[in-house]
Amino acid sequence: MNQLNVCLTPVLIPLYDVEEHVVVIIDIFRATSSICYGIENGAEAIIPVSEVEECEAFRPQGHLLAAERNGEVVTGFDFGNSPFSYTAEKVAGKTIVLTTTNGTQALHLSRAAKRVVIGSFLNLTALCEWLKTQDENILLVCAGWKNNFNLEDTLFAGAVVEQLKYSGFKLDDAAIAANDLYQTGKADISQYLKKTSHSERLKALGIEKDIEFCLQVDLTTAIPVLDGERLVKLQLNY
Amino acid sequence: MNQLNVCLTPVLIPLYDVEEHVVVIIDIFRATSSICYGIENGAEAIIPVSEVEECEAFRPQGHLLAAERNGEVVTGFDFGNSPFSYTAEKVAGKTIVLTTTNGTQALHLSRAAKRVVIGSFLNLTALCEWLKTQDENILLVCAGWKNNFNLEDTLFAGAVVEQLKYSGFKLDDAAIAANDLYQTGKADISQYLKKTSHSERLKALGIEKDIEFCLQVDLTTAIPVLDGERLVKLQLNY
Repeated sequence: MNQLNVCLTPVLIPLYDVEEHVVVIIDIFRATSSICYGIENGAEAIIPVSEVEECEAFRPQGHLLAAERNGEVVTGFDFGNSPFSYTAEKVAGKTIVLTTTNGTQALHLSRAAKRVVIGSFLNLTALCEWLKTQDENILLVCAGWKNNFNLEDTLFAGAVVEQLKYSGFKLDDAAIAANDLYQTGKADISQYLKKTSHSERLKALGIEKDIEFCLQVDLTTAIPVLDGERLVKLQLNY
Repeated sequence: MNQLNVCLTPVLIPLYDVEEHVVVIIDIFRATSSICYGIENGAEAIIPVSEVEECEAFRPQGHLLAAERNGEVVTGFDFGNSPFSYTAEKVAGKTIVLTTTNGTQALHLSRAAKRVVIGSFLNLTALCEWLKTQDENILLVCAGWKNNFNLEDTLFAGAVVEQLKYSGFKLDDAAIAANDLYQTGKADISQYLKKTSHSERLKALGIEKDIEFCLQVDLTTAIPVLDGERLVKLQLNY
């Protein structure tokens, strides 16, 4: 029986044999939501990096550069981390270098996996349908916040568990917990997440519209997959 | 406003300033339950150690030695980790050296805290009443299982949050999640925990009676507190 495991923060990744899993990276506010939307809208590739300086190093290659500090686009960069920047008009055919601390850390620690794909509420059902066809152990990695647990990534992991739990997987304790939290919050996820401290922080950044956007379910069907250093669109065989 | 934080596994302890918190160590099956019961029943002190060999080193001092391997008392030791071994008849006036891997790890990483106390369902309300008098940040540390998340320790953390959440604390995301899981499971915690894989493991060890014992609420009032290397009974001023 294949396992369906949830890794609640990147710090815990070393406790799993990632090479025995298909890994899904989850960073709902906002990295993996923006990545799903950008790939859906025809971006050729998205390259995640940790630091603004690393991002800057890609400038000579003519890529679009995305970086924010405290909710503002860094001077001289093309855009920030808002999913609204990832429209077809802006990204189709382009390669984007995206600065994201938590997400890049999670990706880096997972690269030995059988496959690394990107999940968000935007591509939830498409992702789950693909996962069901894989016949592999699955590890849902929550990028979290500064290496610690956060509620929004865990809630999304619970939404994935909800779609997969009757497909013959063995759930670990964190998968059970994530699913139960999803049951608690699913009627109104936006309202549920308002009680978190993270929510206050995001509100202070003036990105409430981004938050609502990132909580839309099944707006997209593309599944971004890691290919070397680049995230590209997974080519489906069905 | 003081914080009420939940640390979901010992691996995450370094993410907190433990020196700015009163820490509660939680290892429901069975270390912290047995410790609460033993201190309640008049044990002079309980010394937690990680390895059977360390435990053995205390033999010349005439302490009671508790160690198990695969659910069996280690040959030559006085008893194992079952709370039923910690009756007044056996432990009153004695010092016990207890082998516990997860719990000792959590204690070791928390020793810089303002105070380290021990929690379990057995002393839940007494513990919470004392915590309310402290006017300090509180960190509930789940010992977990092999450094990863487990459901029973988190559920107990959620029970503590339930008693403290209207006393003016700011909750972190993990405290919110633990409390919501407690809401899901509280009507029948024993039944709720049966869906975990851990439960199967414990069942295989033949310690189902221990499990039921450890889930009893408010059987005791003593609060074990760390004093150097020893856990002793906290002397209350009220």
